[in-house]
Amino acid sequence: MPRYKLTLEYDGTPYAGWQRQNDQPSVQEAIDDAVRKFSGADSQVIGAGRTDAGVHAVGQVAHVDLPKETDPFRVMQGINFYLFNPTGEPEQENPDIPPNRIAILKAELVPDEFSARFSATKRHYLYRIINRRARLGLEAGRAWHVVEPLDEEAMHKAAQMLVGHHDFTSFRDTACQSKSPVKTLEQFDVTRQGEEIHLRLNARSFLHHQVRIMAGSLAMVGKGRWTPSDLKAALDARNRAEAGPTAPPGGLYLVRVDYE
Amino acid sequence: MPRYKLTLEYDGTPYAGWQRQNDQPSVQEAIDDAVRKFSGADSQVIGAGRTDAGVHAVGQVAHVDLPKETDPFRVMQGINFYLFNPTGEPEQENPDIPPNRIAILKAELVPDEFSARFSATKRHYLYRIINRRARLGLEAGRAWHVVEPLDEEAMHKAAQMLVGHHDFTSFRDTACQSKSPVKTLEQFDVTRQGEEIHLRLNARSFLHHQVRIMAGSLAMVGKGRWTPSDLKAALDARNRAEAGPTAPPGGLYLVRVDYE
Repeated sequence: MPRYKLTLEYDGTPYAGWQRQNDQPSVQEAIDDAVRKFSGADSQVIGAGRTDAGVHAVGQVAHVDLPKETDPFRVMQGINFYLFNPTGEPEQENPDIPPNRIAILKAELVPDEFSARFSATKRHYLYRIINRRARLGLEAGRAWHVVEPLDEEAMHKAAQMLVGHHDFTSFRDTACQSKSPVKTLEQFDVTRQGEEIHLRLNARSFLHHQVRIMAGSLAMVGKGRWTPSDLKAALDARNRAEAGPTAPPGGLYLVRVDYE
Repeated sequence: MPRYKLTLEYDGTPYAGWQRQNDQPSVQEAIDDAVRKFSGADSQVIGAGRTDAGVHAVGQVAHVDLPKETDPFRVMQGINFYLFNPTGEPEQENPDIPPNRIAILKAELVPDEFSARFSATKRHYLYRIINRRARLGLEAGRAWHVVEPLDEEAMHKAAQMLVGHHDFTSFRDTACQSKSPVKTLEQFDVTRQGEEIHLRLNARSFLHHQVRIMAGSLAMVGKGRWTPSDLKAALDARNRAEAGPTAPPGGLYLVRVDYE
């Protein structure tokens, strides 16, 4: 069966995450359903990043096997049609708000050896903080609202201590099933534009909740409650309890996945 | 009763528009409810722009009278509390997604003569188009999806023909109740960044659906189906039927309102 690489975006808000669940809607299930309606195949789509409930993507990558070779543009259009019209009926109450908040941006025919998950060489994430007194209206669920003023320069400096090859035990969820807690964080930049702070980072792979725990820990530095050496101590402790809180999922975006 | 100026943002998606309706949720009603719970007053909030269903705001301005003088910061916090916790109970299923998608950004004590609606000297709008083949996932309901490639330079040039003092009959909804169709459009700029096209415009006031009909008409120019002189002819016709389609509400943002 020919394999297709899909690049996709989604609003993670209505989903229990990427991974298929028994009792809640997931991104994977929505795509699998659309693929089945389009192609007749009962394939399971495999994603590069198993994003948590409420986490968004602007450049998630997945692969799926289809029963026969099909023009990639038709693959994109066909899956999108059923994502937006799950019953096959294009009529709906509010055409601006589709039943699924998922769109395939691109489909490409790839060799059978290609794996969206295992062939990925780098995953890029963005974590958005809105740093202001007033609560979020338009951006609720799409950024982390932090009231206390954050020093983004201190955060950027501290972030550099996490860059490199480390044991990230302190920054992974206690339920994380990854064999090794050792990862190489390639880049971690913190910038501010007005009331918005962006954390941009990439690595070959991340541990469960790693980005969100690092974001929560950097916020401790940004508020001045932690010195950079507190962050270093948290890293060295190899103990989840020593790191900061897990930042909320809505601020996190899977931005891009690189392949060789 | 002391008067407060409120600056606010909202995600227009779940609302039937700014204006209070008998049978559907409106932004005005949600704020009035929160004001009543906070202050006990049955005041009606008056907005600078009566945005349509699905139209967003990042800088809407409104005024409201409260029973007694209150620290403006407490006014902001108090109204926000009840917008986010309509029952007065801060517990909710998903704290990232509040029941209302409205936030007061700022409250200020103003003279009794101040009117958010009548004292406004300029209203600034943004209309967002995402110009790409793939449908919208993350930005569904927050931008207009246009598949056909748009020439943003042609759109910008054409937009300049709408700038100035004109009879905008062609660009107002047939149900528009404004006494005069003559308005002065101060500025209308079209720019592109990647797949996103921004229309930024301002005027003292606009007719009903004016921005959306102008956006729909400029898209005709951008697609190459209309020449700039077709746009001029549409303006001169003073006939709604001669202008382009009304662009969808989700792309429209009330960005700022100026006062003397």
